[in-house]
Amino acid sequence: MVLTGETPSPPSKSTFDLSTYLAEHKAEVELALDRSITVIYPEKIYEAMRYSLLAGGKRLRPILCLATCELAGGTREMAMPTACALEMIHTMSLIHDDLPAMDNDDYRRGKLTNHKVYGEDIAILAGDGLLSYAFEFVAAQTRNVPPQQVLDVIAHLGRAVGAAGLVGGQVVDIDSEGKTDITEEQLTFIHTHKTGALLETCVVSGAILAGTSTENRERLSRYAQKIGLAFQIVDDILDITATQEELGKTAGKDLTAQKATYPSLWGLEESKRRANQLISEAQAELAPFGEAATPLVALAQFITSRSN
Amino acid sequence: MVLTGETPSPPSKSTFDLSTYLAEHKAEVELALDRSITVIYPEKIYEAMRYSLLAGGKRLRPILCLATCELAGGTREMAMPTACALEMIHTMSLIHDDLPAMDNDDYRRGKLTNHKVYGEDIAILAGDGLLSYAFEFVAAQTRNVPPQQVLDVIAHLGRAVGAAGLVGGQVVDIDSEGKTDITEEQLTFIHTHKTGALLETCVVSGAILAGTSTENRERLSRYAQKIGLAFQIVDDILDITATQEELGKTAGKDLTAQKATYPSLWGLEESKRRANQLISEAQAELAPFGEAATPLVALAQFITSRSN
Repeated sequence: MVLTGETPSPPSKSTFDLSTYLAEHKAEVELALDRSITVIYPEKIYEAMRYSLLAGGKRLRPILCLATCELAGGTREMAMPTACALEMIHTMSLIHDDLPAMDNDDYRRGKLTNHKVYGEDIAILAGDGLLSYAFEFVAAQTRNVPPQQVLDVIAHLGRAVGAAGLVGGQVVDIDSEGKTDITEEQLTFIHTHKTGALLETCVVSGAILAGTSTENRERLSRYAQKIGLAFQIVDDILDITATQEELGKTAGKDLTAQKATYPSLWGLEESKRRANQLISEAQAELAPFGEAATPLVALAQFITSRSN
Repeated sequence: MVLTGETPSPPSKSTFDLSTYLAEHKAEVELALDRSITVIYPEKIYEAMRYSLLAGGKRLRPILCLATCELAGGTREMAMPTACALEMIHTMSLIHDDLPAMDNDDYRRGKLTNHKVYGEDIAILAGDGLLSYAFEFVAAQTRNVPPQQVLDVIAHLGRAVGAAGLVGGQVVDIDSEGKTDITEEQLTFIHTHKTGALLETCVVSGAILAGTSTENRERLSRYAQKIGLAFQIVDDILDITATQEELGKTAGKDLTAQKATYPSLWGLEESKRRANQLISEAQAELAPFGEAATPLVALAQFITSRSN
């Protein structure tokens, strides 16, 4: 396992194995996340932050960031602090989303949610702590990247999580609950903001850190937007078709909460068809990168084939 | 009123009027804060963020940042995005601190708290939105400052609000409620983290933006730490001596909640004496800056003489 440093030569399509790639990158991310937070006084808050940050998951966001940075000629080392920050931000959004005043979830990734273990007050603060630490981590830990590029990444991160991104998507999502007249435009707004903006930032931040040209950055941004939407359509489909055990969270919640979903607008089969089409379009954006794009091509496919 | 740009010549002690200084700087900060957030779709979240951000207050944090940047030879324009970010972060901490799961306050600065107006879910998200926007704002809006200095400011900001700062202080504060055996060390930990870390960052970030020497930055840091602690002692004193009308928030809450305070440890008179001593020590740190430090000297005095 390469821990830091030099970019290996781009994987060739013939020898590339996605599960090995994911396992290696995930192990590196887990190690970096584990090292990112040390438990000191007051222990409870650091334990609460670590509890959710190290609760597993696919680490898809950090891996997208690392993979894009490598594709664009950068190293994993350059992107690792941002990759960790993306997972900290994602974790913060899950902790706050699970709160009684929000989705009121007891389980997440098969474990009790943060507030069920540490209490609501600590869960709110653990989210705040992770969010602020994410920015500190990128600013203080990024090495061998021109500072203006690091600032660009921070501006993107901030925008992706704030009212113009994740937070704005959650507000429209909350407003739409129980309403039966949600339009496709509103649903797409929710998803492009609630999950899409951060996924797009995973990819674009990797590109920025590597110093990619504007044209390539825009190409990678379109790739990310398409897989982000496909990811959400698949998520909606899984909520209907998967069991609770497979998901590690309460299944069928969308139906119970009468939430608008793509399957409820388009039907299950059409939803699957559109997700696959988005994946094809996303992959087509990567054509100019040749074999170097093999991991991102495979990651796009992985998203629609996952069962949880 | 100077809106942007050139640093005026340092005020001389003889002609300096603090209330004019505060009014001018506050007006500039209010204008910049007002312009920082435009209400777009989904309106509710931007309105919730603006509701608390523009709810008044002394704007002491941004003014400390602007004043330090000017003292150190920078311009107000260089520091204004950071000054706004400091107020966004402070506002976020108030919104989350007022939540039912935390202090459960209905009023703040004489107005209903954010969650009483917009609901708990939106209040949590408004805090998250302000916190992430603060970092985006510094990264994207700071002009005429070398990018590495902007990164240093972001790292300081993140540390000041996270588990190593404000959030950590709040955790110990929550743990100490109802306990009668709080030590002076624990109480000082609470305050140096809950309020002190951000106040220190106000001053130090202004110094960083202006490109101050390490020696002067450390001097200004000590100034800030001393006024931060004095600020908190005065806050504890006011909680006992001021009326609700003067404070614009529920008075006597510390006593009701059986919270440890400096007056409860030292008595009222000794608390006043120590606050004054800290202010003198803080002012002494500024001696090498001569007349340029007049605003910071006066601000230190202002903190102990305020009645709310």
